[in-house]
Amino acid sequence: MQQAFYRDLRLGILGGGQLGRMLIQAAIDYNVHIRVLDPGADAPCRPYAHTFVQGSLRDYNTVMAFGQDCDVITIEIEHVNTEALAALQAAGKQVFPDPAVIRMIQDKRLQKQFYQAHGLPTAAFTLTDDRAAVAALRDRLPLVHKLGREGYDGRGVQVLRTEQDLNTTFDAPGLVEELVPFVKEVAILAARNPAGQTAVFDPVEMMFHPEANLVEYLFAPADLSPALADSARTLALRLLEALDYVGIMAVEMFLTPDGTWLINEAAPRPHNSGHHTIRACDTSQYEQHLRAILGLPLGSTRQHTPAAMVNILGAPGHTGPAAYAYLREVLEMEGVYPHLYGKTETKPFRKMGHVTLLDPDPLQLRARALFVKDHLQAIVASELPLP
Amino acid sequence: MQQAFYRDLRLGILGGGQLGRMLIQAAIDYNVHIRVLDPGADAPCRPYAHTFVQGSLRDYNTVMAFGQDCDVITIEIEHVNTEALAALQAAGKQVFPDPAVIRMIQDKRLQKQFYQAHGLPTAAFTLTDDRAAVAALRDRLPLVHKLGREGYDGRGVQVLRTEQDLNTTFDAPGLVEELVPFVKEVAILAARNPAGQTAVFDPVEMMFHPEANLVEYLFAPADLSPALADSARTLALRLLEALDYVGIMAVEMFLTPDGTWLINEAAPRPHNSGHHTIRACDTSQYEQHLRAILGLPLGSTRQHTPAAMVNILGAPGHTGPAAYAYLREVLEMEGVYPHLYGKTETKPFRKMGHVTLLDPDPLQLRARALFVKDHLQAIVASELPLP
Repeated sequence: MQQAFYRDLRLGILGGGQLGRMLIQAAIDYNVHIRVLDPGADAPCRPYAHTFVQGSLRDYNTVMAFGQDCDVITIEIEHVNTEALAALQAAGKQVFPDPAVIRMIQDKRLQKQFYQAHGLPTAAFTLTDDRAAVAALRDRLPLVHKLGREGYDGRGVQVLRTEQDLNTTFDAPGLVEELVPFVKEVAILAARNPAGQTAVFDPVEMMFHPEANLVEYLFAPADLSPALADSARTLALRLLEALDYVGIMAVEMFLTPDGTWLINEAAPRPHNSGHHTIRACDTSQYEQHLRAILGLPLGSTRQHTPAAMVNILGAPGHTGPAAYAYLREVLEMEGVYPHLYGKTETKPFRKMGHVTLLDPDPLQLRARALFVKDHLQAIVASELPLP
Repeated sequence: MQQAFYRDLRLGILGGGQLGRMLIQAAIDYNVHIRVLDPGADAPCRPYAHTFVQGSLRDYNTVMAFGQDCDVITIEIEHVNTEALAALQAAGKQVFPDPAVIRMIQDKRLQKQFYQAHGLPTAAFTLTDDRAAVAALRDRLPLVHKLGREGYDGRGVQVLRTEQDLNTTFDAPGLVEELVPFVKEVAILAARNPAGQTAVFDPVEMMFHPEANLVEYLFAPADLSPALADSARTLALRLLEALDYVGIMAVEMFLTPDGTWLINEAAPRPHNSGHHTIRACDTSQYEQHLRAILGLPLGSTRQHTPAAMVNILGAPGHTGPAAYAYLREVLEMEGVYPHLYGKTETKPFRKMGHVTLLDPDPLQLRARALFVKDHLQAIVASELPLP
């Protein structure tokens, strides 16, 4: 796709959030003309897209109309109208990842069945159709209950410990898994281009917020033996091959006490667990996604420095114009780099930005990351004492 | 300047070229609202600025009107109306670097006199008012003749070897220096914030295009003894202190055969010799400039990997819609990263983009950089055989 570099190759992105924003930052270096579709009038991508279209990602006609003016179409969120994407693909547009893959990943029930059908290790599960079906499994408590569709940022997952919990489960198609202890929870970013070239980043270790069930901070690379890191990378690449995948993918995995990996779930796009690649790796997950979907050679995934990433979340109880408590203090620390997402309103646990920490000494890195995650958060502007 | 992070702090940039474009890429992470003034309708910054104003950088009224709607004003090219900037500063706007510094640096005659007055080492020089004054120095040939004002990208410098050369010199105020052999030509990027904090990058070694007299490629860090690198960094910081400077500055220096440094000239802005910092250093020159002018703590200048930077120049004899010969082949090499500037038209020696090469092995790095600079260039699109 030589013309990517000198003609107005128009890349359409479904979704205008922070992942799209960082994708645009990478696309600037490749002379790519960017069109963004998002329902929000103040989407984080809006100021930087060549063309911004405000509209629904789930509406067939809206996505069809948007796609007409694009040469290549990709996503930064998986909750999109895949029928429209399939029709655009059939009409000759390049759509990556494939709409069929996006549709499968949209539904955790289909994802789990795909893993099972392809011999990819994943936790044992039972499909459930509704609340009653979950309640019927009361003898197997404790359980994890996952909504089939529409889960995002920690929503859509319930841990069921008591019979009482069974009264408040989602009442919709989903699945349950046994609640088993995992030694670590890691994510692996991996990419594949249309020629079948693959590249995989080092595993990262994710730390989840105890209340919000979303990534609070992470360390990269994960503290793993070389053999375990290798087997995790191999498993991630097996998934991409099984999907005949094109683009970047985040594969979340559990390490079991007996040293085997189970795929938890995958995201067919750049992912929160790969933000550190911007600062810590030769190629960022965003640039890698671009290279993959533009048919270019993939970049080196070498990580040059140990890194941590801390999400800047909206503080509980705060809803309103955003300010960033302790951001200045954090920037006074050596090796701390901010990435704010341009969101004007904060609300509890909203992802408002992140910081990446770089330190050749992993112990120093860990100490600083813990300080940052205990202090830095988004609050309402009027409550911030200006220094 | 805590409000930088959550209010619509408006940063005005005079100039909308590639330096501004890369400054915007950095500013996105800081939630800074960007306004750009540039005379060109298709300036590289235009698609990414919140507000783009097409107009002259040299016209007092245009710059005044543009500055009214900014909180902080900076430059990405020094050929701007400094009277307007001084008036905006007097009216309470924050202008960095100081307009008086920009005005001094605009004129190489004033620069040289500043170095001399402050005991900063620089090559001996003679001021000349016109062509006749240069010709009067015929007994001292060979000489370097520099135009006082308006030099840029290799224009404004003449090497005078013969009496015949004296007939075609610039006929305007300038200066001459003896043509003496230098061992190396390096640049140092250094920054200072309003609190007086300074940070300095490793020296880089610049290789000039033999015909176009502009940087063709560079290696970073420069191959220097620790003592010589230290003395170069110290000299750069002495200049920033002497100027009471705020922002990033590029200081170009010559190493003499006896191991001393002479300041050649300085640029009061991000500079071609600092492009590699985006990929090779913890903080880029662009992020560092932002941190300085927003009154934030400066970032670490640590270089994590040896790097080379090769400019993608317009091929001689080619003027028209741009394509990039050998770009795909170059991207197939390990550790090569493109930065294209969005310029649709190529012309001889125009800076169309650059690539940064990263390699922990400096010898491999050098070999690859030479291959890249011998192949990669911008040509007219229609002449490119599409692969």
